[in-house]
Amino acid sequence: MLLKNILNRPQNKWQPLIKQFETIVGKDGVVQRKDELLTYECDGITGYRQRPAVVVLPRTTEQVAAVVKICHEQNIPWVARGAGTGLSGGALPLEDGVLIVTARMKQILKIDLENQQVVVQPGVINNWVTQAVSGAGFYYAPDPSSQIICSIGGNIAENSGGVHCLKYGVTTNHVLGLKLVIPDGSIIDVGGVVPEMPGYDLRGVFVGSEGTLGIATEITLRILKTPESICVLLADFTTVEAAGQTVADIIAAGIIPAGMEIMDNLSINAVEDVVATGCYPRDAEAVLLVELDGLQVEVTENKRRVAQICKNNGAREVTTANDPETRLKFWKGRKAAFAAAGHMSPNYFVQDGVIPRTQLAKVLQEINQLSQKYGYPIANVFHAGDGNLHPLILYDNKVEGAWEEVEALGGEILKLCVRYGGSLSGEHGIGIDKNCYMPEMFNEIDLETMGYVRDCFNPKGLANPGKLFPTPRTCGEAANAKKQDNIEGADLF
Amino acid sequence: MLLKNILNRPQNKWQPLIKQFETIVGKDGVVQRKDELLTYECDGITGYRQRPAVVVLPRTTEQVAAVVKICHEQNIPWVARGAGTGLSGGALPLEDGVLIVTARMKQILKIDLENQQVVVQPGVINNWVTQAVSGAGFYYAPDPSSQIICSIGGNIAENSGGVHCLKYGVTTNHVLGLKLVIPDGSIIDVGGVVPEMPGYDLRGVFVGSEGTLGIATEITLRILKTPESICVLLADFTTVEAAGQTVADIIAAGIIPAGMEIMDNLSINAVEDVVATGCYPRDAEAVLLVELDGLQVEVTENKRRVAQICKNNGAREVTTANDPETRLKFWKGRKAAFAAAGHMSPNYFVQDGVIPRTQLAKVLQEINQLSQKYGYPIANVFHAGDGNLHPLILYDNKVEGAWEEVEALGGEILKLCVRYGGSLSGEHGIGIDKNCYMPEMFNEIDLETMGYVRDCFNPKGLANPGKLFPTPRTCGEAANAKKQDNIEGADLF
Repeated sequence: MLLKNILNRPQNKWQPLIKQFETIVGKDGVVQRKDELLTYECDGITGYRQRPAVVVLPRTTEQVAAVVKICHEQNIPWVARGAGTGLSGGALPLEDGVLIVTARMKQILKIDLENQQVVVQPGVINNWVTQAVSGAGFYYAPDPSSQIICSIGGNIAENSGGVHCLKYGVTTNHVLGLKLVIPDGSIIDVGGVVPEMPGYDLRGVFVGSEGTLGIATEITLRILKTPESICVLLADFTTVEAAGQTVADIIAAGIIPAGMEIMDNLSINAVEDVVATGCYPRDAEAVLLVELDGLQVEVTENKRRVAQICKNNGAREVTTANDPETRLKFWKGRKAAFAAAGHMSPNYFVQDGVIPRTQLAKVLQEINQLSQKYGYPIANVFHAGDGNLHPLILYDNKVEGAWEEVEALGGEILKLCVRYGGSLSGEHGIGIDKNCYMPEMFNEIDLETMGYVRDCFNPKGLANPGKLFPTPRTCGEAANAKKQDNIEGADLF
Repeated sequence: MLLKNILNRPQNKWQPLIKQFETIVGKDGVVQRKDELLTYECDGITGYRQRPAVVVLPRTTEQVAAVVKICHEQNIPWVARGAGTGLSGGALPLEDGVLIVTARMKQILKIDLENQQVVVQPGVINNWVTQAVSGAGFYYAPDPSSQIICSIGGNIAENSGGVHCLKYGVTTNHVLGLKLVIPDGSIIDVGGVVPEMPGYDLRGVFVGSEGTLGIATEITLRILKTPESICVLLADFTTVEAAGQTVADIIAAGIIPAGMEIMDNLSINAVEDVVATGCYPRDAEAVLLVELDGLQVEVTENKRRVAQICKNNGAREVTTANDPETRLKFWKGRKAAFAAAGHMSPNYFVQDGVIPRTQLAKVLQEINQLSQKYGYPIANVFHAGDGNLHPLILYDNKVEGAWEEVEALGGEILKLCVRYGGSLSGEHGIGIDKNCYMPEMFNEIDLETMGYVRDCFNPKGLANPGKLFPTPRTCGEAANAKKQDNIEGADLF
């Protein structure tokens, strides 16, 4: 209703608004030319495209608050955008809405090594945090593969993961406090500099709320001491099941590696075709990478144990990277897996789902059956340690009806994950891409309760409408609305 | 207004309600005799006392939901109670309200070792979880000192801590999913069996919400592998500052002990008077206990490093407990510290506040100044690793005006914690004891936002009214309303 009213407004209504925005952020902080707006029409998932009416680039909390306040008073919907690397369309703009971009909020405001905390603005790039403190022997743990280009603000919106989240947890475990601009333009503080805070954990609610509750403008992050020693083991197996069992056995032995990743035969060959690491045996059905970190003595001992567990599960060979160069080479293949899929097939679609680690073998078998049923090859690459799957469905968009079949196949994989007690998304978020699947996981009362909480912060529904929550449209309609092509930035997972 | 209306109702209004409750939980599940209600008139903080109108003892989620639904429909306020060991009056009943006690909800519903999860009812005692899985080499990490009598439901309400929370985090870090009865009687599920869940983290909001958002009736807990090796170091220092600096240096060296505790001279002597461990030198100004766990090789290496750091900071002696018996002896003194304070002085009051670890020395100095200003000795015992202080103010309740002065002193200590960037409560919660201090830490908009979230779950304000949130009364009024005596169960911290 509200949106409809707004859509019916004359386009020139924007001119007085733009003047107001310019007063707040300066003339160079407002983008309104159609060609310049093109930059902002999609995030990392290029299948959804929409130019915003206007882009505003604030520099401070106060500027964000002033812009949001105007939107609130004039009932203008808005979307926040970080670096635009998201993979669920969470930052997709609205045709008749404002896009608030944090690209000019790139200051590291405070480094407090003694308390192991860093305070940043939301536009700060993930990797900069580690760069700022690594000289002093610290690092920021959450490491999405896009970490050299994605922003902390976006990481918070999506509660981003990464290879090291198995041992160290996802973004929410590393965010101590947040200064927020909520959708009425108020500024509030949630969390704090000590982990024990009384009252409701609103910090936790905000992390992963996908832009529907406001904008974080100052973020207090926890940093960790760089481990004394790191090594990576690479083991190859003749069945994916054996690799999966090895993962279960390593955890069952009480070892928590920094990361554990599996790639299947299709991925291995794709990677060796493209980046030729020379480390991944082409005839292996699965390769398992295990990163261990900690004290030198601890890593040495765990390396011995992990190698033994790999051998007990029939690993043909276990090689170890102890120096940074070899480690990089081992990881190179894994990091290139998605890009490599693009070389195997005209198009591919990546799914993101979670299952309980112990169900790995069964779920992979069912994914294989689905692949055969639909007639599309699926390459499997996954964060095995925490059961986060990334099946890559290979297809050709030029074939009539292919995309619809692939989307149906992707949907079946998600439902499979939920059926095995898992989750719709491990790290890419729900956004506009998966909100139609939310009822697979949550019943009406669960969603209603979440909706109430959204309304506390966002009572007019102006902050990122249409994302995260299921809209009345069905998944089929979503598929029709979506023009899927290759996902750019796909080497960034 | 609502409460006033209820208070004006005739007492016999309860009879038809009691009938309804009896239909749900059986005759033996309802307590209404005044002498029997006495058991429930206070929790672990005996300064606040109030008998409820009626106690209901459900056994299942459905029974809880049915009872709560009746309260919702008939506008009856209610309070949930676990084992009643809480230390902030969070489970204090209402004169004209229902007390829902989880004492009959003591089933461990599921043990899933493969996925390292246990599902329990809320009345299950904390320690039972570890007992149920220790044979298989697992344990439940959060360990409040009351763990042999406190319940998991209460732990969730208060987001309980414990000695091992330095390394392993507090209760919220170990709760994966919750089945909840919310105040309208609906049953909802929050969180899940995999850590990555889309949508808002309502699980996180519920943990620590002190009974104001509903009752958790099924709780999925994460269990951890028992470490291969554990040892405790005991170091004694000639200044508290040196002990504090040692704690900072251990963390700065990248070592995260399972726990780090400091006791000052007054506590040491109290403990040796009462339990005579023989381990704590009476002339030491501070004793530091450091527990290390992990692989044997890791513990051995860290033991060497910690001992060296202690010596660098002037520790007179560093002794090590490698076997369970000696470990127990080392901890015995620490665990008896509060009870021992009771032997030093007719009465004592324990405060619970948090400061950034690095401010330890400064804050202790200021506490010492406050002690002198007010003329009451203060013994200091604290979870030094996470900056959680427990100053024990010694006084005599028979002296006119003493309690008022002690409460003022306690309040000044809390304000001191907040001023140094800390928090009002480390692990005991806000309840009815500290809600008047909430504005010291949160501004009006912060509290208002929390209030909105409360209203999502608890729109009629029937679940645990008067707790957690500041009420219009001032702290002075609270002091007058409160008849402080010794805090029973004080050996349970």
